[in-house]
Amino acid sequence: MFEVTHVDPSGARIGQLHTASGVVETPAFMPVATNGSVKTLSFDTVAGLGFEALISNAFVLYLRPGLEVIEAAGGLHKFMGWDKTVFTDSGGFQMLSPEFLGKTSEKGVLFRSPIDRSRHMLTPEACIDIQNRLGSDVAMVLDDLVPFGSDRDALSAAASRTTRWAGRCKEANRSDGQLLFAITQGGTDLALRRRSAEALVDIGFDGYAIGGLSIGEPKDVMSQILREQARVLPEDRPRYLMGLGSPTEIIDAITSGMDIFDSTFPTRNARHNGAYTFKGYLNISRGGFKNDTAPIEDSCKCYACKNHSRAYIHHLLRSREQTGKSLMTIHNLYFMQRLMALTKEAIREERLLEFKEEVSGQISSKYQVKV
Amino acid sequence: MFEVTHVDPSGARIGQLHTASGVVETPAFMPVATNGSVKTLSFDTVAGLGFEALISNAFVLYLRPGLEVIEAAGGLHKFMGWDKTVFTDSGGFQMLSPEFLGKTSEKGVLFRSPIDRSRHMLTPEACIDIQNRLGSDVAMVLDDLVPFGSDRDALSAAASRTTRWAGRCKEANRSDGQLLFAITQGGTDLALRRRSAEALVDIGFDGYAIGGLSIGEPKDVMSQILREQARVLPEDRPRYLMGLGSPTEIIDAITSGMDIFDSTFPTRNARHNGAYTFKGYLNISRGGFKNDTAPIEDSCKCYACKNHSRAYIHHLLRSREQTGKSLMTIHNLYFMQRLMALTKEAIREERLLEFKEEVSGQISSKYQVKV
Repeated sequence: MFEVTHVDPSGARIGQLHTASGVVETPAFMPVATNGSVKTLSFDTVAGLGFEALISNAFVLYLRPGLEVIEAAGGLHKFMGWDKTVFTDSGGFQMLSPEFLGKTSEKGVLFRSPIDRSRHMLTPEACIDIQNRLGSDVAMVLDDLVPFGSDRDALSAAASRTTRWAGRCKEANRSDGQLLFAITQGGTDLALRRRSAEALVDIGFDGYAIGGLSIGEPKDVMSQILREQARVLPEDRPRYLMGLGSPTEIIDAITSGMDIFDSTFPTRNARHNGAYTFKGYLNISRGGFKNDTAPIEDSCKCYACKNHSRAYIHHLLRSREQTGKSLMTIHNLYFMQRLMALTKEAIREERLLEFKEEVSGQISSKYQVKV
Repeated sequence: MFEVTHVDPSGARIGQLHTASGVVETPAFMPVATNGSVKTLSFDTVAGLGFEALISNAFVLYLRPGLEVIEAAGGLHKFMGWDKTVFTDSGGFQMLSPEFLGKTSEKGVLFRSPIDRSRHMLTPEACIDIQNRLGSDVAMVLDDLVPFGSDRDALSAAASRTTRWAGRCKEANRSDGQLLFAITQGGTDLALRRRSAEALVDIGFDGYAIGGLSIGEPKDVMSQILREQARVLPEDRPRYLMGLGSPTEIIDAITSGMDIFDSTFPTRNARHNGAYTFKGYLNISRGGFKNDTAPIEDSCKCYACKNHSRAYIHHLLRSREQTGKSLMTIHNLYFMQRLMALTKEAIREERLLEFKEEVSGQISSKYQVKV
């Protein structure tokens, strides 16, 4: 189901994840399709960018359009018109979203729908039933997530509950072909993190995600936790760091042994005029680009860079033309693919730490504008 | 420059317009790219739909991004990244747009920029200079347009001024490869329309547009005027009916001898959830489509219909996903292309009036929802 084919001295791996819909080569970045669409793009464009997997949100799709609609279409793949791998997030992360007003108890999470204010009890069993019915390739357990800065007791309780819920999820699972990934919790506390991972490994899952990170903690703390998690997690299972989208942080996490990533960061930044380049972050709507006949990035072969100038995209963004956001999104997702390709090359050549230094020097860690 | 290859008994023609950027087979519908972008689409998609020409707006582009920016890019084609035929509208139509606050005198039109409130005097000479510099394939003269319902004196004065301005435009033109089309005026008055067309033909242009229609007049009045205009205009010049986008009205205008069309109608309706089909207009956001696993139109081979259901597109529209608007736009533009292809086939087989009856029976004239 998961084979590691190369390991770099840093601990970074190249692997192949086999799902019911195909093979995902890791390290892999997954675009986010919360509502069943990668924002601003059609799926032929997403596939054309070379993505082998994306992540959608089971709970959000359960609320709208509803399971009956997706089941009538023959499952989530057919509903969306995407035949490659689909991960579904459980909805646990929505606990941190004020508009969902989540209230957690041992039973599960009571949510309010932000669409029509209706109440929905998301138990671990319900979360698995939803994902079984959606027919995603990889289902995520329901985890108990507490905000960054919670005290040790709260972190400990949430991690323990996440383990109990993960057990209930595994028990409830009725799908054959669908993989089930657990999620570690424990905030920034190394001992709690270790305990969480060990307990989940004891239950046994197809893969392990690291949850509750990149929600505010310092960068070096995250690295330390990731290394600790990788030490405990089995070598032959994929490791998925949820919600991390900063290019330099992703490379850093790969050196810590992480395999799979997802984030709305590249696509959301694109819609807010921010282009990723290997020389830093460019706000293309700034006046300095008005007359700039160069592409967003000279070395880039994406559709936007091959066909359009900064000046043209600047003009579309200023004129509030939706196509401007699409071109920016194409560029940023292509950038993430280039970054993954270069990272894999560096792992194959066993020089990932060197590559990380090179890239981090060019792409500033804060990814600020450098014009 | 323009050859008529087939004529139907109705007077409808098939022709080939040769421009500096290629051949446009007529009857042709042009998507509108006012700001240099067909809203919600990238140009590879527009080209993939088979369009050979589009229309942009010279005055709007002059205001933003400005001529210097487009000249620095090497002209409008290179700026946009579209190498096929480009028409540019002069800006005359913006006289009817309240946000431009146009004030007309013999000299030209004094506009206020809706972007920054700056004043701009658009004379016939300036209008041609702008279009020469943009390097479009077909430039339009500046015409004097008065609202529907203006009295005969106002219509007569505007038509006469349009003729004088057309003469000044021809005089001012410094471009070799660019074609220049005149625009007839005269509202719904047959005698004024005849006089306008005759005077413009006397001056001599590469093509003739019919302006000041489809702004509120009854449908049968428009047909009568078009037939009268076609009678006066030379056979060997293309006839462009500006701003008409209703499918049945376009077919009707083709039977009256019109060759070229443009309208924001199909793309704007798409963004407001309205799909064109050969069985009528469908508002895909309506509840009845929530569970509908059929494509927008069974017989349609567009990307949206080949890959997605009404239920999926309904879901995207309800979830305010931009991709929903793109898929709807693709469908409606493809519909216009199918309509043009079927119309040409009917002209070749000399049965256009029959085809018109068939289609009009299916597509209601008001293009109302039939679910």
